Amino acid sequence: MRERLNQTIQFPNRPKVIGRHAVVGPKEGGGPLKEYFKDVLKDDKWGEKTFEKAEKKIMEHAVFAAIENAKVSLDEVDVLFSGDLLNQIISSSFVARRFNTSYIGLYGACSTMAESLALGASIVNAGYFKTVACATGSHFSTAERQYRGPLELGNQRPPYAQWTVTAAACTVLSSSEENGNANKIGKNSGANEKNTVGNGKPAQIAVTGATFGKVVDYGVTDINNMGAAMAPAAMKTLVAHFEDTGRNADDYDLIATGDLGKLGSDILRDLCGEKGINLGPNYHDCGAMIFPFSDSVCQGGSGCGCGAAILNTYIMDKMEAGAFKKVLFIATGALMSPTTAYQGESIPSIAHAVVLEA
Amino acid sequence: MRERLNQTIQFPNRPKVIGRHAVVGPKEGGGPLKEYFKDVLKDDKWGEKTFEKAEKKIMEHAVFAAIENAKVSLDEVDVLFSGDLLNQIISSSFVARRFNTSYIGLYGACSTMAESLALGASIVNAGYFKTVACATGSHFSTAERQYRGPLELGNQRPPYAQWTVTAAACTVLSSSEENGNANKIGKNSGANEKNTVGNGKPAQIAVTGATFGKVVDYGVTDINNMGAAMAPAAMKTLVAHFEDTGRNADDYDLIATGDLGKLGSDILRDLCGEKGINLGPNYHDCGAMIFPFSDSVCQGGSGCGCGAAILNTYIMDKMEAGAFKKVLFIATGALMSPTTAYQGESIPSIAHAVVLEA
Repeated sequence: MRERLNQTIQFPNRPKVIGRHAVVGPKEGGGPLKEYFKDVLKDDKWGEKTFEKAEKKIMEHAVFAAIENAKVSLDEVDVLFSGDLLNQIISSSFVARRFNTSYIGLYGACSTMAESLALGASIVNAGYFKTVACATGSHFSTAERQYRGPLELGNQRPPYAQWTVTAAACTVLSSSEENGNANKIGKNSGANEKNTVGNGKPAQIAVTGATFGKVVDYGVTDINNMGAAMAPAAMKTLVAHFEDTGRNADDYDLIATGDLGKLGSDILRDLCGEKGINLGPNYHDCGAMIFPFSDSVCQGGSGCGCGAAILNTYIMDKMEAGAFKKVLFIATGALMSPTTAYQGESIPSIAHAVVLEA
Repeated sequence: MRERLNQTIQFPNRPKVIGRHAVVGPKEGGGPLKEYFKDVLKDDKWGEKTFEKAEKKIMEHAVFAAIENAKVSLDEVDVLFSGDLLNQIISSSFVARRFNTSYIGLYGACSTMAESLALGASIVNAGYFKTVACATGSHFSTAERQYRGPLELGNQRPPYAQWTVTAAACTVLSSSEENGNANKIGKNSGANEKNTVGNGKPAQIAVTGATFGKVVDYGVTDINNMGAAMAPAAMKTLVAHFEDTGRNADDYDLIATGDLGKLGSDILRDLCGEKGINLGPNYHDCGAMIFPFSDSVCQGGSGCGCGAAILNTYIMDKMEAGAFKKVLFIATGALMSPTTAYQGESIPSIAHAVVLEA
């Protein structure tokens, strides 16, 4: 019985991170993590006529740059796993149109980076394909008008709201590290070119496990209060991960959720505390890290680009430099739509986790 | 180089179909395949206040019934792979909320049944999990108002249009057949209860391979002409499948696309002919099979429920009865959204294929 409730799988073949890239918008690039964001847009419309076209361009750039960073040719990438927040995940599908690679479209809302890495690592670890790209992205202006209201209305935001991050990121995984050079800087679209961290040869990062989340719904109906809706999903996935693996929070140098925001991550600490799990100083939330505390962003960042960008810059930079050896990255997604909200439904949420080791 | 362009994977452990179920709407249940549809709704709103809630209820019923048909308990299902046509795949996510199982949300438009089976079989074949459920569904009234216009407008349909099928289906795959009994009838929601086919012990169906499709765009911009937009994707996946496996069309007792409709499947025959592939009498399209030829449905059915329902009834019934031994099921998806159409984009499409053997 126990075996069947298991949500975690291990990857003994250790699919390797051979390339990665993240692009962020100007607001994100000016925040507390600016020294880690090497590719910052000067304009979040990037010369396009619409925000949707800009979101696609940003994601496309992140995927191309990650593949370039991996030092593999485009034809060597076997599968692209990607998803985003837009209806019919158009950013991902239109990016996939540019690549001569198989494509698996995903929808996990803001949990997409972990979902794509978990599936991509599953496929590579099993030996089905050698090299896969795992991508996601989000854009403040497309998400805002799709999920909430026209930007021009200038709606006030409640204090527990979060701010959708403009960013896209891609991780290239491979069964072989021969072509990889994850420490090389990909081509740059904006300002802020900086050197990567690392003294000597950077540590090789591998995805060594994944916990597939279950859908959780604690009955939150306020679509501005995503952190509260998603925190229970993160807690359930953490509990399952620790039960399945026999590990505890101290086994990780960093446990990072993306993206509960400040309030949501406080709720997660409380919920975990009730389960006897003490999330100590090694726990951080990507949404709470990406912006300086201010009125406009309220509880911090959200959107699948937020955790994805931080994972592919700050977290992996630190792993390559030896500061983090073992990281648990948990991406959380709120699975409602405007239609379900109008029809009185609460917000189901999910959280997938991946283990990264350097 | 050749190896890296390979899009096909084989499943030597032969993940088995241990349960399956399909629910269809009244219009579908009265069509040419009515003797195979054992679970037909009398009312496509099924007592719900909205069509979206009805779509969710129909999919939920299909998943529960397939699991019951598999004779496994709900807790024994490790992962649900599911997607649908609605924004943020709300039907799938809200169904997943009812199950205490891990959930991977997918978006592949009408290609979802093949996408979920391909991923589910990958996961089971690799030994990560024992039992997975692969599901999808669509509803005429939700798709029509989301993609085209309010039903109340009564818009005319061009002669090359297709009619979104109201149906949901689920296949339960397992590494072990010990609990399976795919020939048993699941619980029934409507009229039309019929006996399953089969004389003696039904043949065991297994998923033995999958070809992951690439995104193809031939520049079709008319959102009513899905068949023309998707046929090139089906052709590319067929070509890749035959190149990868060394097989040809004659190796299959049935090649079924879902859902190009009559016009789209004629285009596919032509496109394949240009590549030297002769799709003979064993090729059929699910969209062209589900409705009688009439003005209202134009070229036939579409929507991810169409191919999914026919696969889980007619095709698998015939496989269990020994009429089909080897089937190639190719589900095609058009990856545009109303937003991309308004912004002048053409329609990227994809097709994933799975090989089923009895």
